[in-house]
Amino acid sequence: MGDAPIPATGEVLIRVRYAETDQMGFLHHANYLIYFEQARTELLRDVGLSYKQMEDEGFLLALAKVEVKYRAPARYDDLLRVVTTVVRITPVRLEHKYEVFRETTLIAEGATTLACIGRDGKLQALPDWFVRRTSKVEKT
Amino acid sequence: MGDAPIPATGEVLIRVRYAETDQMGFLHHANYLIYFEQARTELLRDVGLSYKQMEDEGFLLALAKVEVKYRAPARYDDLLRVVTTVVRITPVRLEHKYEVFRETTLIAEGATTLACIGRDGKLQALPDWFVRRTSKVEKT
Amino acid sequence: MGDAPIPATGEVLIRVRYAETDQMGFLHHANYLIYFEQARTELLRDVGLSYKQMEDEGFLLALAKVEVKYRAPARYDDLLRVVTTVVRITPVRLEHKYEVFRETTLIAEGATTLACIGRDGKLQALPDWFVRRTSKVEKT
Amino acid sequence: MGDAPIPATGEVLIRVRYAETDQMGFLHHANYLIYFEQARTELLRDVGLSYKQMEDEGFLLALAKVEVKYRAPARYDDLLRVVTTVVRITPVRLEHKYEVFRETTLIAEGATTLACIGRDGKLQALPDWFVRRTSKVEKT
Repeated sequence: MGDAPIPATGEVLIRVRYAETDQMGFLHHANYLIYFEQARTELLRDVGLSYKQMEDEGFLLALAKVEVKYRAPARYDDLLRVVTTVVRITPVRLEHKYEVFRETTLIAEGATTLACIGRDGKLQALPDWFVRRTSKVEKT
Repeated sequence: MGDAPIPATGEVLIRVRYAETDQMGFLHHANYLIYFEQARTELLRDVGLSYKQMEDEGFLLALAKVEVKYRAPARYDDLLRVVTTVVRITPVRLEHKYEVFRETTLIAEGATTLACIGRDGKLQALPDWFVRRTSKVEKT
Repeated sequence: MGDAPIPATGEVLIRVRYAETDQMGFLHHANYLIYFEQARTELLRDVGLSYKQMEDEGFLLALAKVEVKYRAPARYDDLLRVVTTVVRITPVRLEHKYEVFRETTLIAEGATTLACIGRDGKLQALPDWFVRRTSKVEKT
Repeated sequence: MGDAPIPATGEVLIRVRYAETDQMGFLHHANYLIYFEQARTELLRDVGLSYKQMEDEGFLLALAKVEVKYRAPARYDDLLRVVTTVVRITPVRLEHKYEVFRETTLIAEGATTLACIGRDGKLQALPDWFVRRTSKVEKT
């Protein structure tokens, strides 16, 4: 796994699937949350970690809050670029923001707050290695 | 269709489907947006209208903004009650808030802003009959 | 819970959600599998049982096979009637068939085979009470 | 667009998303249909075509039949390989088969029949260029 710091920013390309469109002809708005989820887990993979691993060790990240602003629609087969940034870490919470681009156009922005919980559903501290390796981010 | 005012508040019962859970054992967070969508369209149906009809007449309501706060998880087979309120109407926008209950426990709160657009994707005024019949809501 | 036999046939009404449509303007075909899942669990609920309960007791029903024939499209806001029939029970498998109607038009037919597995993913016999109470069905 | 023949077989890698799992801890079975859809459209892209283009020209491919056999579960974060083969073309129909692998293990097999329809929902012949370029496949 090495010891590389978890990057504060990363990006992932996601192509809009047919099943994700709706009869308006747009990517249905609920799918942005699924793209955000995929995007933030890829940040971990970039340094050889995986969210799967965190869950296997008993650290679950449950969504506590999400906000999305939709600026322009995405359509079937669009190749979207989701830029994800870790903006804040507290002992039990993790905040990301997201920007979704189609080519150079910003089509959506989002923010999430994740809470670290155990298998029992109770809040618990994020794993030490995770906090240590996410070094470039404001901690409070 | 009559001429009954569109109610400012309504509620709908939604049972959590198996396919909507994730491996954490919870209703996956993206599905709340789908529940909100179902809930706000039921408000129209209560007075003999339908969102389908609005679309057929060329008035599309596209999501411009959403916010959700998750307070407690929902699980497979839970029967959730989504209370929806129209909080504001402008000539081209419509704002709702949502409260999701499992029995008497508030498990999530949300807010959305919808923009009225035409088939060309451009903003247009909400239909007159819609604004007129949503009479109890603050208009700006 | 009583001891009423699990009915061999039942039906459930499902309204097509906006998010379930695709840009073709139809209910996306993958959602039929989710409707089938909801429909077969409602068969159990009709006699005071729940699939949730089976899972809690360690009996998981995993899909082994599915087949769907799509005869006519369904659209947003359609109220569909899914008629479900248990067609066969073996010690470890359960077969259903499904007919989806919009008013009196048969729009799709399906069939599934479920395998009973444990938390370890291995095949195991269906619970005794389940087999006993599903009495009207061919057993092999 | 060139004139390269549409390949009779191709493959695509798809990573299982968290939102696609269910509380059994597996990739929910309905998602295989969405993976199949993505896989067959990538066959077209391989030769510089796109399904989007077909739709824009008024040729819609609607699912007429699907069958899936599930052999082993997939889990969150698994990188699956979907091998897709065009097995038959008739004037108005297109048949594919699919094999889903996790590393070298075959975890699912599927088959679909697509019908070519127009915007009016009526059957119509597949576009000439499509039939001509899918030259290696049995035609009947």
